[in-house]
Amino acid sequence: MLSDIEISHTTELKPIAAIAHRAGLHDNEFNAIGAHKAKVDAQAVLKRFDDQHDGKFILVTAVTPTPLGEGKTVTTIGLSQGLQTLGRSVMTCIRQPSMGPVFGVKGGAAGGGYSQVAPMDELNLHLTGDIHAVTAAHNLASAAIDARLYHEQRDGYEAFEARTGLKALRIDPNHVVWKRVIDHNDRALRMVTVGLNEPNKSVNGYVRQDGFDISAASELMAILALATDLHDMRKRIGRIVVAYDFDHNPITAEDLQVAGAMTVVLKDAINPTLMQSLEGVPTLIHAGPFANIAHGNSSIIADRVALKLADYVVTEAGFGSDMGFEKACNIKAAVSNHAPDCVVLVATLRSLKANSGLYDLRPGAALPDSLVTENHAALKAGFANLEWHINNIKKYQLPVVVALNRFPQDSDSEIAQLGQWIHELDPEIGFAQSEAFAKGGIGTQALAQAVLKACEQPHNFTPLYTTEMGLLEKLTAVATRGYGAQALHLSELAQQQLARFDALGFGSSSVCIAKTPLSISANAALKGAPKAFDLDIRELKLCAGAGFIYALTGDVMTMPGLSDKPAFMALDIDANGQIIGLS
Amino acid sequence: MLSDIEISHTTELKPIAAIAHRAGLHDNEFNAIGAHKAKVDAQAVLKRFDDQHDGKFILVTAVTPTPLGEGKTVTTIGLSQGLQTLGRSVMTCIRQPSMGPVFGVKGGAAGGGYSQVAPMDELNLHLTGDIHAVTAAHNLASAAIDARLYHEQRDGYEAFEARTGLKALRIDPNHVVWKRVIDHNDRALRMVTVGLNEPNKSVNGYVRQDGFDISAASELMAILALATDLHDMRKRIGRIVVAYDFDHNPITAEDLQVAGAMTVVLKDAINPTLMQSLEGVPTLIHAGPFANIAHGNSSIIADRVALKLADYVVTEAGFGSDMGFEKACNIKAAVSNHAPDCVVLVATLRSLKANSGLYDLRPGAALPDSLVTENHAALKAGFANLEWHINNIKKYQLPVVVALNRFPQDSDSEIAQLGQWIHELDPEIGFAQSEAFAKGGIGTQALAQAVLKACEQPHNFTPLYTTEMGLLEKLTAVATRGYGAQALHLSELAQQQLARFDALGFGSSSVCIAKTPLSISANAALKGAPKAFDLDIRELKLCAGAGFIYALTGDVMTMPGLSDKPAFMALDIDANGQIIGLS
Repeated sequence: MLSDIEISHTTELKPIAAIAHRAGLHDNEFNAIGAHKAKVDAQAVLKRFDDQHDGKFILVTAVTPTPLGEGKTVTTIGLSQGLQTLGRSVMTCIRQPSMGPVFGVKGGAAGGGYSQVAPMDELNLHLTGDIHAVTAAHNLASAAIDARLYHEQRDGYEAFEARTGLKALRIDPNHVVWKRVIDHNDRALRMVTVGLNEPNKSVNGYVRQDGFDISAASELMAILALATDLHDMRKRIGRIVVAYDFDHNPITAEDLQVAGAMTVVLKDAINPTLMQSLEGVPTLIHAGPFANIAHGNSSIIADRVALKLADYVVTEAGFGSDMGFEKACNIKAAVSNHAPDCVVLVATLRSLKANSGLYDLRPGAALPDSLVTENHAALKAGFANLEWHINNIKKYQLPVVVALNRFPQDSDSEIAQLGQWIHELDPEIGFAQSEAFAKGGIGTQALAQAVLKACEQPHNFTPLYTTEMGLLEKLTAVATRGYGAQALHLSELAQQQLARFDALGFGSSSVCIAKTPLSISANAALKGAPKAFDLDIRELKLCAGAGFIYALTGDVMTMPGLSDKPAFMALDIDANGQIIGLS
Repeated sequence: MLSDIEISHTTELKPIAAIAHRAGLHDNEFNAIGAHKAKVDAQAVLKRFDDQHDGKFILVTAVTPTPLGEGKTVTTIGLSQGLQTLGRSVMTCIRQPSMGPVFGVKGGAAGGGYSQVAPMDELNLHLTGDIHAVTAAHNLASAAIDARLYHEQRDGYEAFEARTGLKALRIDPNHVVWKRVIDHNDRALRMVTVGLNEPNKSVNGYVRQDGFDISAASELMAILALATDLHDMRKRIGRIVVAYDFDHNPITAEDLQVAGAMTVVLKDAINPTLMQSLEGVPTLIHAGPFANIAHGNSSIIADRVALKLADYVVTEAGFGSDMGFEKACNIKAAVSNHAPDCVVLVATLRSLKANSGLYDLRPGAALPDSLVTENHAALKAGFANLEWHINNIKKYQLPVVVALNRFPQDSDSEIAQLGQWIHELDPEIGFAQSEAFAKGGIGTQALAQAVLKACEQPHNFTPLYTTEMGLLEKLTAVATRGYGAQALHLSELAQQQLARFDALGFGSSSVCIAKTPLSISANAALKGAPKAFDLDIRELKLCAGAGFIYALTGDVMTMPGLSDKPAFMALDIDANGQIIGLS
C-alpha cells in the first residue's frame, strides 16, 4: 500500500469551488485559498438558512488510546465517505492539526490511507493560517502586558498617568497569569525568565518568571472554537483575565486596550476552512484545541454551518470518551445548545489489548509486536475499557455505535468475539468494522448503516452538570461521574483559587480538566477501567473569555517536548520540490 | 481627505485574476488566495521566459529619515502608477510589513493616500502567511537545538549514541548562536533564560541564556529574500550555523537534521504574493527584512519574476541610502547579479529640516509643528544630507533622480529653492515633485518622466567591495566609503569572531551592518552629513546560510519595544466587522 502522502498526492482532487457547490454554498459564501482550500463566510451561510432545521450530528470518540492514536480521524472521515456512498448528504468537521505533533512524534492528523482530508500536507502545515493567528494574537497580549509593566514601573504610576493620560494598571509582576504560546513542542520554553538585562541596564523590561504553552492550549484557541460569531469573540477576548493588580483585582485584555487588536488579528480565523476528503466529502477544519490540555473539540461555528448545509455531520472529539467527548457534552454543548444525535466509539484490537495491563508498554517506545498477535485473554481483559466507555456514553443518554477500526493483520475470530461480547452487554448497541484506512468509504458502509439507524433513536441528552451548580460541584461531577473517581482532592493552591474565582463572580463557569489521555484516571499507568482512584487537582486557571475554569491534574504539562528522534528528521523536499516524510 | 483604510475600503479593486492577467501571468502560474491576493509560481514563470531580456530596474531610496518615515513606499507605489498612466508596462516589488511596527508605533507599510497596495489590512496583517512561516521554521530549529541538548546531556553522549544511533553533537550550551524569533515588538523577550525547572526537577531541559529577535531579523528572512529557488533555499538552510560544540566546531541545521523540515515549512513562502495598487498596478510582496537590523530588501525571486513580466520594475530599499540601498548594492546585487538601472532618492522638506540639527527632536516624541513652517535657513542646513545621499548613489555609478514627496502644507518657494540647489550641485540630476499620496499616479507623472529619462542613461554599476576582498576590508569599505567614517573599530569580541569566521572559511561572505537609520553614522544624534566620526562594531554574527557576516554597531537592538501608547490601542472591529484604526 502507498504511504499517506503518496495517496494524497496521487488522488485527483476536485477544484475547491466544486466541493463548495456540492456542499450547497453559494459563490458569495466562500473565498478560494489556492486550488484546494476555501474560507467559508459563516455569517453569510447562517443568515441564509436562519430558521431552517439542522442535520443529524454524529460525534466520534474512542476507547482509551495508545500513544499512537486508534484512528478516530480516519474513522470520522471514512464514515463520512461511507454515508456519501449510501447517497446521503454529509459533511465532516474536524480540528486543525498543530505543528507540534506533526514535527514531534505523532505525525500529521489528516486521517490516513484512503480516508484522508487532502491535500494532507496543506492541512498538517499552515492550512489558512488560523493557528498562526491565534499564536500572534496571544503573544500580542503578552507583549502588551510586559510593555505596560515596564513603562509603569519605570516612570512610577503617577508620572505614567500624567504623561500618557492612561490609568495605571499596577500589574503585580508575580501575578501575571497569561503565559506566552508557540505552536511547537518545545520543553525548554515551559519555564523561562523574561525581561533580563545586561548588568546595570534596565532597557529590556521588568524581570519576571514566565512560560510558554503550546498554541493549542491557548485560551484564544478555546475562544475561537466556542465563539458564535466575530462580535461574540470580541466580547470574550475583552473578558480574558491576563493578570492581577497588587490589590488582587483582575486585569483584562480590555483593560490593556489590546482586545480590539487581538480580534483584528483573528478576523479571518473566525471563518472555517473548507477542504475535501479523498472521496470529495466537503470537510470543514476549524480551531485546534487538544483534548488533554484543552477542550478538544472543533468549532461551534463550523458545526452550525455544516448542520445547515448537510443532512449528516460527522465530527470528532479528541482522545477517549473521558476526554474530548466529556468536554463536547459539558462545555461545548452548553454554549452551542446542540447535543449529538449519535456517538461513534472507535476501538482497535490493539488498544483493547493495550488496556489489558498484560503488556509492557513504555511511553515513547514503539508498541510491541505481540499486541497484534491473537490473544483472546488479553482482549477479554481489555474489553473492560470498552465496556467503561460504552457505559460512559450511555450516562449522557446518547445512542452509541462501536466502530472497530480494522488493521490488515487483525484476527477475524477476535473481532467476532468482540462483537459477541458487545451484543451480550447490550443487544441495542450497534457494532461494525471499519476498513476506512484500506478501502475508504466502501470500507465503512456497514458502520454507516449502523449510524443511520442509531440517529433515528430518540435520545434525552443529559450533561453531567448544569450552569447553576457550584464550581466544586461541577469538578466533582466530572471526577466522580465523568471518570469514576472515588473522590476529588484540591491542593491548597487550587482551593484558594476556587474561592477567589467564586468571589470574583465566575461561579457559573464550566470546568475543563487537563489530564493524561492514556488512562481514564489521571495516572497513565492505570489501564482498563480503573476504580478506587482519587483525582488530584494541583492548580486552577480562570479562562473568563472561554467561559471555563481550567483544572490541572497530576503532572500534566501544557507544553509537550520533542523526543530524541523527532518526526522532523524524516521531512524534506525531493528533487521536484514535493514534500517527503510526512505521515 | 479620507484615512488610508477608508480609501482602501472604498476603492473598487479588480479580481486578482485580472491583475495577474494584466501582469502577463498564465492561469497555471498563479493561485488565487481569496479575492485580492495570489501566490505566483515563480519557477514556472522563470522557466517560461528563460533567456528573454529583463525590464528596467528602478530602486527607490531616501535621505536620512525622521522616525515617521518619508514616504518611500508611497513614492514607490505612486511612481509605478505614474508610469502606468504614461502607458508603460510596470510592476512593483515591496517587502511584507511586520506586525511589530503595525501594532507598535509606525503603523502599516502599504504606502498611503491614493498610492497604496490594497487591501491594506490584508497586506499589513497576515498576508499569505510568509512571515508566520519564517517564524515557525526558525523556532523549529530552536526547539531542535534545545531538545538535542537536553537528550544528550540527560543520557550522556555514549548512552545517547547507543540508544538513538545518532552521533552526539556535544552542543556547548553557552555557545548557541541561534536565538528564537517572534513577529512582535516585545522587549521583555530580548534576554531570557530558558529550560528552567521546578526545584529538584529537570524535565524542562537544560538551563541556558537565550533571547528573541523580531522575525524580520531572522537569518531565514534573509535567506528567503536572497534565495534563487526552493533548492537553493534548502541548501542555504542546511548551511546555517546554529551553535558550536565544546571543541568550537560549528553545528549546522543540517547536523541537527532539521533543515529539510524547515524548508518544508517555508515551501509556500518561497513564492511571492501578487496584489494590486489602488490603480491596479500588479505588485509583488515578498520577504520582509528590516534595513537597520537586517539587509532591508525584498526578494530576488520577486524581482526576477517582475523583470521578466514588465518593462519597468520599481522596488524600494529600507531607510536612507546608507542603509537598504547600500545592502541592495553590496549584498543583494552580488547574488542576483542585477544592478539597478536608476535610483530614486526620496526627500521631504520635513526630513531635510530635521537633518539641519536646528530642531529639538526626541525619539518617541511627535515631530514639532515648526518643522512644516517655512524656514529657508533650516532647509539649507539640511540640504547637506541630500547632497550626501546624492553623492553616495553616484559613488556606485548609478543615475539618480530626486523625488520630493510633497505634503499639502509644503511651501512652493522652498521646493523651488531645493530644485535650484540640486541643479547647482549637478544639472544632470533629475528632480521632480511627487504628489503620490494626494493624487495617485497622476501626481507622479513628472517624476515618472524623469525616471524614464534616467533609465536610458548608461551606467557602470560599482559596488563597494568584491567577494575576493577580506572581511575586514569589506567592513572597512562600508564604514569609510559607504558611510564616510574616518575609521572602523572592532571590539575585542568582534576581532576574535572575525578571526574565527575567517578560519572557518567564511572569508568570502558579504557584510551586513546593523545600525541606526536616523543618522549616516551609528550615532542617531549626528544629523545632516556627519564627518569625523568612527564606526564601532561591538559584535559579529555568522549568517552562513544568508551568506553574510552580520555586524552590530553601537547599541542597536534586534528586538524593538512597545511604547507606552502603542498603535494597537486604536485597533478594533466596528459593528459591521470591519477593521478600524489601522493606518
